[in-house]
Amino acid sequence: MIKVDLSGASSFFKGNGPDYAAVAEAHRTLAEGTGKGNDFIGWLTLPQTIAAGELKQIVACAKKIRARSQALLVVGIGGSYLGARAAVDLLRPTMKEGDVDIIFVGNGLSPDAMMDTLHRLGDKDFDICVISKSGTTLEPALAFRMYKGLLVSKYGAAEAGKRITAVTDAHRGVLHDMAVKEGWEMFVVPDDVGGRFSVLSAVGLLPMAVAGIDVEKVIACAIDEFKAMDLRSPENPAWQYAAARQHLYRNGKSIEILASYEPSFRFFAEWWKQLYGESEGKDGIGIYPASVEFTADLHSMGQYIQDGPRFLYETVVMFEEDINHFEVPHEVGDPDGLNYLAGRQLGDIMRTAAAAVKQAHIDGGVPNITISVPKRDEAGFAALVVFFELACGLSGYVSGVNPFDQPGVEAYKKNMFRMLGKPGAK
Amino acid sequence: MIKVDLSGASSFFKGNGPDYAAVAEAHRTLAEGTGKGNDFIGWLTLPQTIAAGELKQIVACAKKIRARSQALLVVGIGGSYLGARAAVDLLRPTMKEGDVDIIFVGNGLSPDAMMDTLHRLGDKDFDICVISKSGTTLEPALAFRMYKGLLVSKYGAAEAGKRITAVTDAHRGVLHDMAVKEGWEMFVVPDDVGGRFSVLSAVGLLPMAVAGIDVEKVIACAIDEFKAMDLRSPENPAWQYAAARQHLYRNGKSIEILASYEPSFRFFAEWWKQLYGESEGKDGIGIYPASVEFTADLHSMGQYIQDGPRFLYETVVMFEEDINHFEVPHEVGDPDGLNYLAGRQLGDIMRTAAAAVKQAHIDGGVPNITISVPKRDEAGFAALVVFFELACGLSGYVSGVNPFDQPGVEAYKKNMFRMLGKPGAK
Repeated sequence: MIKVDLSGASSFFKGNGPDYAAVAEAHRTLAEGTGKGNDFIGWLTLPQTIAAGELKQIVACAKKIRARSQALLVVGIGGSYLGARAAVDLLRPTMKEGDVDIIFVGNGLSPDAMMDTLHRLGDKDFDICVISKSGTTLEPALAFRMYKGLLVSKYGAAEAGKRITAVTDAHRGVLHDMAVKEGWEMFVVPDDVGGRFSVLSAVGLLPMAVAGIDVEKVIACAIDEFKAMDLRSPENPAWQYAAARQHLYRNGKSIEILASYEPSFRFFAEWWKQLYGESEGKDGIGIYPASVEFTADLHSMGQYIQDGPRFLYETVVMFEEDINHFEVPHEVGDPDGLNYLAGRQLGDIMRTAAAAVKQAHIDGGVPNITISVPKRDEAGFAALVVFFELACGLSGYVSGVNPFDQPGVEAYKKNMFRMLGKPGAK
Repeated sequence: MIKVDLSGASSFFKGNGPDYAAVAEAHRTLAEGTGKGNDFIGWLTLPQTIAAGELKQIVACAKKIRARSQALLVVGIGGSYLGARAAVDLLRPTMKEGDVDIIFVGNGLSPDAMMDTLHRLGDKDFDICVISKSGTTLEPALAFRMYKGLLVSKYGAAEAGKRITAVTDAHRGVLHDMAVKEGWEMFVVPDDVGGRFSVLSAVGLLPMAVAGIDVEKVIACAIDEFKAMDLRSPENPAWQYAAARQHLYRNGKSIEILASYEPSFRFFAEWWKQLYGESEGKDGIGIYPASVEFTADLHSMGQYIQDGPRFLYETVVMFEEDINHFEVPHEVGDPDGLNYLAGRQLGDIMRTAAAAVKQAHIDGGVPNITISVPKRDEAGFAALVVFFELACGLSGYVSGVNPFDQPGVEAYKKNMFRMLGKPGAK
């Protein structure tokens, strides 16, 4: 379903261009499970695993939540947050009558943001879905303690227990133990899947299902997409993307700007930033992942992209087909001079703008990679997730790092727990 | 009101450190109006100008809109969008009973986003505020034509005309001429203020006032802040920020990451990106302006910041005082192990986390600039705007560019108008 167009980057390639032999080797290493971090590659088979496992239970649980609540507090941070947020924002950017308000909490420490959440929640009936492998990550643990208190004070302990769902380790950990003791419904954060690769597990699927997204369709499409992406050839779009970006990086392009023309794509770009930034940004190397929203940001970051230092390239995600259609109306007297566009579809104008931008940026010295996907729907989301995950694994291996660890995340936590006086912290 | 703390950056300074002599010279040039782009420095006196001019009319207009409408469509892009969006998101992140829903449109071309707007608008009574210097920028012009049609079909031409406010050129242009002909209420985009410096004109103030923000307080504080910031010494926080960032840039720090611990700061960071990216990103030079939201992004971009290439520094904006307060509750049995924090304020924990992050990042090789402001309120917003604007002018002059033009924005527009077949385009 995914197409990668490198025609806007090829004039910037040097020597023999992208190194497909290195990508082929990376793919072999990844598929055979012989590379660095090979105990965290369960995401390669996650769609099949979940289809044969928890998927039906996830759908059933979501149905119950939708029936009894108007809001779901999703407690989680990082990989336990961004995938579901990306999906909900992309596929359900506005709520319709009967939809459940999905409120992401526990991803920060701001008391003002907590008050905003309480206002947004109002007196809606609500459930809590708490997502944490260990249960000890500070932000979600604190938020869970506080919102659980609210739930108990609203419904009493017994009913509150029926309104909590825990997505956590299958066997151990603080959250696991609480859930078992209290009898909360539980789903699993798989052992062999890192947070940033977990969106197609219950971590992402449960909030998505509560939002009304057809997660069975997402998983069916993801299974097909993983099969298609197993192609071992430079025709594989994940090979093209991985090879091109590593080639550009080695030739001085240090920043990748992910762009879309859909405002609803904003948090998908945040998910992508975690996926690539956390996988590749280590050992003193890595492409800096940035994002923009076009056309809005053509009127803010556009100047820099066009005329600033030439150490960046852009990757543009295009949806080939719009869901909605608007025609530019004719206006008598043409007061604003736009009648030359009357009768044109807004989506066509958007794509013309995108073509104009691409040419301008290439002319300005910015390599362009264009990724297209048929539609902004469940299938398109699944295809993008699988494509970006696989390309990330390949690209990370080509760059020489372990794309599946995140040792740098511990540094501030260690300081923080010591400064907060956590028992045993040093 | 603003304090700049360079203690986290100073160990990265080389030689004699930041060049305050160059900043002093830039300040002189700016104040005397003898530098590049000196016909666009009206923002230096904008608060006084507006206080003596349109301010009361803006407040009165906003009051009328608040009385008759539950929604305001603000049509604008770039500098006619981001300032107001930044203010509304920062100071009024959630709506309370009786608030007007401020919906920003005309900042893109997505038909799906347009449908989302129509859903959000529903059957609310609404006004339109259209903001464009010329009236010919494609995105807002198209959106205005389409939403104006909706307004007319809902209220009839006569009533619709009373519900449209135009912020545009004082004397000429397509939008100006339409407004005069139709009798719409009008406000001015000043000739000597570029879009990205216009938030303290009607461009930003009218939507802010409709949102319920006390714009008279904003302007009074901005006047005070401009006076305070006229200090010609290295004690001036704008000098400190401008000198430090240029020094870091000359020593290989090419990316500045603006961070905040408040989710409501997200669009203020977008406003900042336009301000700095568009002012400094030209002639092949300029710091790349990026942003993160902590603590959320410590669990996504944190790995890269801690361990990736050492070509970045971070600037953290801290609000010293919270508006809301939550205490961590004690829980019998301590099931989640958080009782060591019971009785602590969430805001104190947040600030401890910030101190821990700062130390971890400095240890990891990332210079830290901390900017603090007393509170997330009208005065804090005004102080941040004045501080960042002045520092931007100074920093731009030190780097040698004209910080007040944006020639690169035209490249894609030229392609686009030709490809769309606009009469006269080539």
